Order: sequence, then structure tokens, then C-alpha cells
Amino acid sequence: LGLGPGKTQVMTQEAHEALAGCGVVLGHRPYIEQIKHLLQGQKVIKSAMTKELDRAGQAVDLALSGEKVALVSGGESGIYGMAPVVYELAKARGLKLGQGPGELKVKVLPGIPAVAAAAAELGAPLSHDFACISLSDRLTPWELIEKRLSLTAQADLVIALYNPKSKNRTWQLDRALEIIAEHKPASTPVGVVRRARREGQSINLFTLEGAKEAEVDMQTLLIIGNAQSYVYEGKMITPRGYINKYGEGK
Amino acid sequence: LGLGPGKTQVMTQEAHEALAGCGVVLGHRPYIEQIKHLLQGQKVIKSAMTKELDRAGQAVDLALSGEKVALVSGGESGIYGMAPVVYELAKARGLKLGQGPGELKVKVLPGIPAVAAAAAELGAPLSHDFACISLSDRLTPWELIEKRLSLTAQADLVIALYNPKSKNRTWQLDRALEIIAEHKPASTPVGVVRRARREGQSINLFTLEGAKEAEVDMQTLLIIGNAQSYVYEGKMITPRGYINKYGEGK
Repeated sequence: LGLGPGKTQVMTQEAHEALAGCGVVLGHRPYIEQIKHLLQGQKVIKSAMTKELDRAGQAVDLALSGEKVALVSGGESGIYGMAPVVYELAKARGLKLGQGPGELKVKVLPGIPAVAAAAAELGAPLSHDFACISLSDRLTPWELIEKRLSLTAQADLVIALYNPKSKNRTWQLDRALEIIAEHKPASTPVGVVRRARREGQSINLFTLEGAKEAEVDMQTLLIIGNAQSYVYEGKMITPRGYINKYGEGK
Repeated sequence: LGLGPGKTQVMTQEAHEALAGCGVVLGHRPYIEQIKHLLQGQKVIKSAMTKELDRAGQAVDLALSGEKVALVSGGESGIYGMAPVVYELAKARGLKLGQGPGELKVKVLPGIPAVAAAAAELGAPLSHDFACISLSDRLTPWELIEKRLSLTAQADLVIALYNPKSKNRTWQLDRALEIIAEHKPASTPVGVVRRARREGQSINLFTLEGAKEAEVDMQTLLIIGNAQSYVYEGKMITPRGYINKYGEGK
């Protein structure tokens, strides 16, 4: 299940119910911290980052042993989250999926994606067609990431960049901005959101040209506009085009 | 605010609170129907589809007159939703945004996007980098839509197609699938989700080659896999790549 970004006011009702009804809660440490005030007697297993497979394996083992397990992801469980890892593992182990004995029963509960929370704080920068691209080359070859950046920029899509930087990945963002700038104007608005809906949230607006100066870390998401995007009264907006087509209307 | 798809169990807690605390609720008729059991004495204004600008204008007028207005979108308010329309209108009217007298106070509350709900029902087909593209050419030139389809397919992104068909737009989806098939293998899995998390939900899996046979309407969303996507035990999965990189792990 996806917890959404940070504060539990953005959790869905069904995620609240799933947490309340489970026997074991499993997740990356900071996500467990985020929800611990909601837990009452459930067994809690915190796990470290980069241990996604171990975590999914534990969840699957516990579920097969008859436990009702909540495996939590920050943001959306199906977008850079744990849902696909559980399915990957089920396939690798040749498990049957279903309700029967010996079968693994999986239910994916979506959460508010980080990109939607970041967008809401910026104004309305997604609005229409967009792409999400992670700059982490841990599991994806950097060449493919570069290709995706170039083609989506050529497609004039709004681009959301996940995982822009980490302790060990320091040059990727600058290179990504450079590639995007080959196909989008230097004046394109870029929204930089750190810790959306969490303590210490920061929201900053740049141009594509100036975005290299942004303070960016692992908990930052960047949203790069399309050719129509603008900043108005401190908000980053990608118009859907109603005003252009219909005027102000009545 | 975004209601998420269909059932109110996927609404966030803050959306519930905003509805409970407002004086007027404004929205497209079916979304109002969806939440009417949550309303208690709020003034309700239902509006027709394709009246987005009128609806945003009413919301803005009411807000400026001192009302606390909840303008609702199905799914996510910032993705093909009403949030950008409000900002577009504010700019067209030259309104100041802020907390002061005469200023328009806007707060965007995100909802579970239709694409995340559809993905959760299919399995985990998004998982990693993806693009959302609407096939509606009401506000976007069809040539630009074709370009976006071609480039995102070349980028090997998972592609979610919004608004694939309507009464008046009948040929666009076939053409879109044709363009995508120029760059993705015929065997690529395609998930077709109608009315995700609503009454009458249907979930069907096709290959890219076979997807033309799918029954599709305005309330359908298609998710087309990337080169790694597969179907396992009836679920559509795009692996994040942990198994490939680390084996099953321990």
C-alpha cells in the first residue's frame, strides 16, 4: 500500500483500514516512523533502503505463512514503489497468485504519488500530458535514461524527475538538465520541491537555464514545464488550454 | 480537490475534511453523485461536462464573494483535472493569489490519479518511468499527440492513454496503437481498464497487436508496457529490475 507523501492526512481511507486490519507492517524505516502513531499492536518490521528484495521476500514469506501483511511504500505503491517488487519475486519463485491454499493473495492499494503532491504545492504544473523519469542508474542503464530525457523533451512533455541526486550520484542531474535544454527553451519554468507535504518542505521556482543552482537531494522532485507552462503569482502552471481556445467564457 | 477514482474509500482524509468544511461544492454531475452521501447541508452546484471554464469561473466568483468552495475533480485534481483551469482563469482575469482581501486563496488537494488506480487493478504495470498521454484533440492538435506517442514509444516508456475514445472521437485509438506499434513489439502487454474502482469495472489484458479488439469508451484507460513488461498469473507487471540485477536475493 502507498502511504502518500508524508503526513497521514493524505492517506486514503482504505489504506488506513488496511493498516488497522493487518497483523504485520513492513517497510523502509522512515515510512514506518511516519505511520507509527496509527499502529496498535501490529508486529512492525523496519528495513533499510536498498533492501527492497529482502523486504518483499519477508512480506511474501509472512503472507504465505498465513499473516495479513501490510507492505508500505512512500507515495504511490505502484510508481517507484514496492508493488512491482512483490510481483517480480512471485514470478521468480513461481508462486501462484490467488485466494486458494498455498497461493499468494496480493492487493495493491494506491497512494498519492510524490509527483502529484509536489505539483499541488507548485500550483498546477502537470495538468496535461507528462512523463516521470528517474535519474537513478542503479537498475537502469544511464544511456537509456539519457535517451528517455531527450525524447520526452522533444515530445514537449512536462517532465518530472525522480531521484535527481544522492550521495553517490552527483553529476546526473546537471547532465539531465543539459539534455533537456537541447529541446526546451532556457526560459522553461522548473519547479523544485523538497520533502513535499513533510516537515522541512521547500518549494522553489527556476528557469531551465537557472535550475543547476537549485539545492537538490534524494528527497527532491523536479518538474520541468512544457512550451505553454508559465509562472503566475508565484505558482507554476501548465494551462490545459481552455482560455486559449474559448477566451474567458461566460 | 481530487476525489480519486470512484469509491470514496480512496479519497484522502484531507479531501474528506475539505468537503465537510466547505460551504459550496461544485463539480461535474457524476462526481457530485459519487460524494453526495458525504454532504450535509452544503450548497451543491452540478455542472455539465465540457463546461470546465464556466465551472471554474463560478468557483472563483463564489470564493471571491467569501464562500469556502470545494471544486471537485474525478481522480487527481492536477492531472487532466480542474486545478489548472482555476489558475488559467485567475491569470486571464489578472487576479491576485493570496490570503489578503480581494485575493483568491487556492489550495490544491491531490487525489489518487486514475492511472494509479488502473495500474493497481492490473498488477504493477507502471512501476518505473512512464508517460500519460491524452488522445483528446479537443485542446491539443492531433499532430502533437501523434508526435508524443511516437517519441514516448521510442523512449521505451510505459504509456498510459487517457481519453482513448468518445462518441465523436472514434478513430484516434486505432491510429495511436498503430504509431506505438512502430516502436514497440507486437507482443507488448496492454492493460485495458474500464471504470477503475467503480461499479461495472472491467479489466482486460491484450497484446499491442490485439488491443484494437478491446472494448473501449470514455471511461477506459489503457496502459501499454515497456520492453520488460510481462503478464504473470493474470497480472500485468513491469519489473523494476531487482531480480535481474540481484537474483532472488536472500
